[in-house]
Amino acid sequence: MLSFECDYNTGAHEKILQKLCETNYEPLPGYGADKYCESAKAKIKDACDRKDAQVFLLAGGTQTNQTVISSVLESYECVISADTGHINAHEAGAIEYSGHKVVALPQKYGKLDAHEVENYLKVFFADENHAHMAQPGMVYISHPTEYGTIYTLDELSALSRVCRNYSIPLYLDGARLGYGLMSDGTDVTLKDIAALCDIIYIGGTKVGALCGEAVVFTHNNAPKGFFTSIKQHGALLAKGRLLGIQFDTLFTDGLYYEISRNAIKSANRMREIFKKKGYRFFIETVTNQIFIILENEKAEELKKHVSFGFWEKYDDTHTVYRFASSWATTDVDIDALAGLL
Amino acid sequence: MLSFECDYNTGAHEKILQKLCETNYEPLPGYGADKYCESAKAKIKDACDRKDAQVFLLAGGTQTNQTVISSVLESYECVISADTGHINAHEAGAIEYSGHKVVALPQKYGKLDAHEVENYLKVFFADENHAHMAQPGMVYISHPTEYGTIYTLDELSALSRVCRNYSIPLYLDGARLGYGLMSDGTDVTLKDIAALCDIIYIGGTKVGALCGEAVVFTHNNAPKGFFTSIKQHGALLAKGRLLGIQFDTLFTDGLYYEISRNAIKSANRMREIFKKKGYRFFIETVTNQIFIILENEKAEELKKHVSFGFWEKYDDTHTVYRFASSWATTDVDIDALAGLL
Amino acid sequence: MLSFECDYNTGAHEKILQKLCETNYEPLPGYGADKYCESAKAKIKDACDRKDAQVFLLAGGTQTNQTVISSVLESYECVISADTGHINAHEAGAIEYSGHKVVALPQKYGKLDAHEVENYLKVFFADENHAHMAQPGMVYISHPTEYGTIYTLDELSALSRVCRNYSIPLYLDGARLGYGLMSDGTDVTLKDIAALCDIIYIGGTKVGALCGEAVVFTHNNAPKGFFTSIKQHGALLAKGRLLGIQFDTLFTDGLYYEISRNAIKSANRMREIFKKKGYRFFIETVTNQIFIILENEKAEELKKHVSFGFWEKYDDTHTVYRFASSWATTDVDIDALAGLL
Amino acid sequence: MLSFECDYNTGAHEKILQKLCETNYEPLPGYGADKYCESAKAKIKDACDRKDAQVFLLAGGTQTNQTVISSVLESYECVISADTGHINAHEAGAIEYSGHKVVALPQKYGKLDAHEVENYLKVFFADENHAHMAQPGMVYISHPTEYGTIYTLDELSALSRVCRNYSIPLYLDGARLGYGLMSDGTDVTLKDIAALCDIIYIGGTKVGALCGEAVVFTHNNAPKGFFTSIKQHGALLAKGRLLGIQFDTLFTDGLYYEISRNAIKSANRMREIFKKKGYRFFIETVTNQIFIILENEKAEELKKHVSFGFWEKYDDTHTVYRFASSWATTDVDIDALAGLL
Repeated sequence: MLSFECDYNTGAHEKILQKLCETNYEPLPGYGADKYCESAKAKIKDACDRKDAQVFLLAGGTQTNQTVISSVLESYECVISADTGHINAHEAGAIEYSGHKVVALPQKYGKLDAHEVENYLKVFFADENHAHMAQPGMVYISHPTEYGTIYTLDELSALSRVCRNYSIPLYLDGARLGYGLMSDGTDVTLKDIAALCDIIYIGGTKVGALCGEAVVFTHNNAPKGFFTSIKQHGALLAKGRLLGIQFDTLFTDGLYYEISRNAIKSANRMREIFKKKGYRFFIETVTNQIFIILENEKAEELKKHVSFGFWEKYDDTHTVYRFASSWATTDVDIDALAGLL
Repeated sequence: MLSFECDYNTGAHEKILQKLCETNYEPLPGYGADKYCESAKAKIKDACDRKDAQVFLLAGGTQTNQTVISSVLESYECVISADTGHINAHEAGAIEYSGHKVVALPQKYGKLDAHEVENYLKVFFADENHAHMAQPGMVYISHPTEYGTIYTLDELSALSRVCRNYSIPLYLDGARLGYGLMSDGTDVTLKDIAALCDIIYIGGTKVGALCGEAVVFTHNNAPKGFFTSIKQHGALLAKGRLLGIQFDTLFTDGLYYEISRNAIKSANRMREIFKKKGYRFFIETVTNQIFIILENEKAEELKKHVSFGFWEKYDDTHTVYRFASSWATTDVDIDALAGLL
Repeated sequence: MLSFECDYNTGAHEKILQKLCETNYEPLPGYGADKYCESAKAKIKDACDRKDAQVFLLAGGTQTNQTVISSVLESYECVISADTGHINAHEAGAIEYSGHKVVALPQKYGKLDAHEVENYLKVFFADENHAHMAQPGMVYISHPTEYGTIYTLDELSALSRVCRNYSIPLYLDGARLGYGLMSDGTDVTLKDIAALCDIIYIGGTKVGALCGEAVVFTHNNAPKGFFTSIKQHGALLAKGRLLGIQFDTLFTDGLYYEISRNAIKSANRMREIFKKKGYRFFIETVTNQIFIILENEKAEELKKHVSFGFWEKYDDTHTVYRFASSWATTDVDIDALAGLL
Repeated sequence: MLSFECDYNTGAHEKILQKLCETNYEPLPGYGADKYCESAKAKIKDACDRKDAQVFLLAGGTQTNQTVISSVLESYECVISADTGHINAHEAGAIEYSGHKVVALPQKYGKLDAHEVENYLKVFFADENHAHMAQPGMVYISHPTEYGTIYTLDELSALSRVCRNYSIPLYLDGARLGYGLMSDGTDVTLKDIAALCDIIYIGGTKVGALCGEAVVFTHNNAPKGFFTSIKQHGALLAKGRLLGIQFDTLFTDGLYYEISRNAIKSANRMREIFKKKGYRFFIETVTNQIFIILENEKAEELKKHVSFGFWEKYDDTHTVYRFASSWATTDVDIDALAGLL
């Protein structure tokens, strides 16, 4: 059975497994105080080119979004997101569970537009009754977005400018950040992101780790008591080494970028194959996620041999499906897929 | 200074004040266990024609919405509302503060459409990933809506049908219910509402009381422990008599309807005057709220003599304002307003 | 039927009712922006002798505690209270509902001891694992306490010193503050309290108002966005005038103190009568609450003619009951009680 | 450097690592829908001898406690715990963050006493004002306790009886369950626990896994929507395989018990050594945690060669420290420790 269902269908990159095995019997302090966590954090700060950054390692994406957003916001503040943003659409109300409204603005190709945000803020503060409403306290974006699209440097800079004008932190969810950074034609680097955003999370789970997301407060702006907040959210692993070792490996010798690039090359090949075979794309993407509109019958046929992800109903006879490559996708897999299409 | 700013700019109907004075020295048990609360509840059940209803008296609207919604929903559930719904737009994130997402659907004249709701639910449950999302656990509407519009019996019945098909309670926020029930041409009675909705709140604050909202669970469906939940939300008045006496008075000899009718008659006169004088309406309403688009200069001029409410910016030179009548509006007030327009 | 059940069994002082009636038809802005609120706040600041104080008016006690505590605390902080403190024992978990732990320390006569608090903080910060625990962010006391006892100036000063050493705000719940200030032999004034505490609430509901509590941030230390937080907690009355008029009246010509003194004089008489008749006191009090240990049979007998409050079981044949006087208690009531004892 | 700091200072049992490596490239569905999770759950149900049990795999202990407790409790309910219980003392207020009060009862050797619980419930429901308080909705115990002690079958049965009399679920936190089950002289088996408790969690993190806790609802009593609740708490790992593979390995051929037994044998040797060398025990334990009172100077000396955990200050010159063995402790380690003592 072939699998293009998602980018978290295999285990971890073998260098990670190898390092976990090698270090297994080293006694290390718990809760992230070990030397591998320290090393990982230093490497991530370097990669971001931010000496004054603070790095924290958490286990999963929704957990990270909930912990970061609810710790940064004051209790009466809300977070602005594209309506398709992961926190708004697919996290089971985790942000609201922590007490905060997600204000959803319309998206374009999964992206939040700087003008849209600026206009929202202008109208909000011009409203004489705005003290009766949840106050905007953060802007949330994802890169790549949930639709596999990416921001240009201009778009990101414009968002950053609006946020800084209003003194509202900009938070970038990089669950699949590697795939965005390694996309063909992107003009955005990790350093750009670290310079333009106030908080970012660099995804591990979907980019070669068993689990793990690295939160970066880019300019010494972690909220007071953040370590305690992590614990309070149930997000503090006793064996912090599990996260430290993984991120230390990913950020050694550019492994994170290298394996991300593999996913992009794989996705590029897949896109060509889909195109050549006449499949309809639901949206144009340049990252590792490809959205294809399939006739329902065709889909059922394909499902016998390959797994892929339900995205949404298109119409009564068609459905949108997601085909994802990953750091682990091989040419053999793609050839096999090509044979089935 | 004339005041058409809102329907809560004066105190209470004089019969309420009189009753508060008369009963002032009667020693009564606290927390709503007094005979006036009991009498008020019985009269409200009668007015709803629901023998198996349960009635609770709370102090304010946002408080009522927060207490009801968070007590009825399971922790992983969300509430569906029109995007202009009070809980979504003007309650400072009170629902989210209590842990629940407000799913905002597009409105038509402030109203939620049954087809829209049905379609949302159909798509939601057809989504193979819906267990990863907040589960719909309530539909919230307001009658009159925030735009001063009202549901027809057909519209309300359709919403009720959809909710019952999906076993999701329908909750009607009646902060201004009296004004809806007494509007010209409405075909909806309180009994209809009580039959079609699972929970309703009958507004006192904006209909002649100093404070107070009556929550009606229409068919013995109050959540377990609801009294404790009221306390936990800080919504239990020690002197419950303040609410009991007010609602007992409002629901004696049809006072609630009578004074609501006064607001409608006043608003009808005001609408005629605005129309005759060539003012532009932002939206057509039949209740006590009138939305007028004013040139900014004209508005500044008027504000010297009459207060009215900011609603929203219309364009760079115009603003939408709300003029509200109330149970207390007099013909003298309206004549004076007419003279200024 | 005589009633000594509590201090909220009658309505409001007649001057309050009179003022509500007089001002009833004055159109006033909503949400506390009216002139009576303004005047009340100015008078309360004067009474506290704090020019830089900020005053907010809320409706009820649990609501006030929840709104204040959850707005002042950071999300990872807890509040320290005597184990008998109202927030710990009798508010249905309202503080925890807003996300914060109540750390309960042992009480002495309902009071929190400065040494106890200091020791707790010393041990807490000496614990090498304290970052894994909720961080102390406030000390809560009540004056009078739930047991009707009061702090001496020395005790209060000591608590204040400890709090300021640790930079932790001291919050005083004065639901019955008037009765504490007017007690025989107290050496604590409102000005002392305002100087020693960071936040206080001056109770109205139990001291002659229909409802209402005045929160005082004593030195310009209200948390950012506090108005929005009040709304978010459902604690913002549309007709703020109801609170403004009441507190304006209570703080005009010393009415608050005068009517509190009546409760103390009444309680003093009652204490003498109980003593003379050989009743056993559960605890010595100097305020308006008297705790008597009654034989269960005697209690049943008395209940036929007078209502009084269950406090706790004493043993299998005895129960502790509370007899409370109030601003409204008359000598006629007390004589009648004396006749029954 | 020797390490007896805790039982989570090394990685995972080598069979777990081996299995992770072997299965690494198998494509598997995410979010716990894979065959290893299924197999692990079946084995755990078998081990519990509960055909109608429901098993869920989460990543960490505080996360598990927060997710389980807040999902099982109604919003107005609280959980009863020993005051030394992990949820009360060392989880940064995570339970309160999710909205629920932890009612702390006095402990005896870290244990909750059935009589104490019964008495609390009796007094609670006898209090005429109990509707004003958080309602008891769960009893929480840990086995072994935070003090390394364990319940006898009689004690556990008595607690179970009280809970069932009051229809309150009994929840057992087994973060170190293996060490309790394998202790010398225990008369409690996993089957006993599964029969007497309503919910248990079987700890992996501290018993040989990299991370992971298995929640068992023992009689088909998982709350509705629990999967969504897990997601909402940020506790759903995308690569659920990480948990499935680990628990599948731990519950194959009795590995969980076998490695737990190693920790107990190691601790027994350590206890003998401490005793022989005249060290003072802070509390008697039979599990893998040993609490020793050390002179501060001696402790500083020892810390140069061995790490161990701060527990609490004993007096000005002494401190209580924890020495823990684990599944990975070797005789070589213990010999080295003995040489230093």
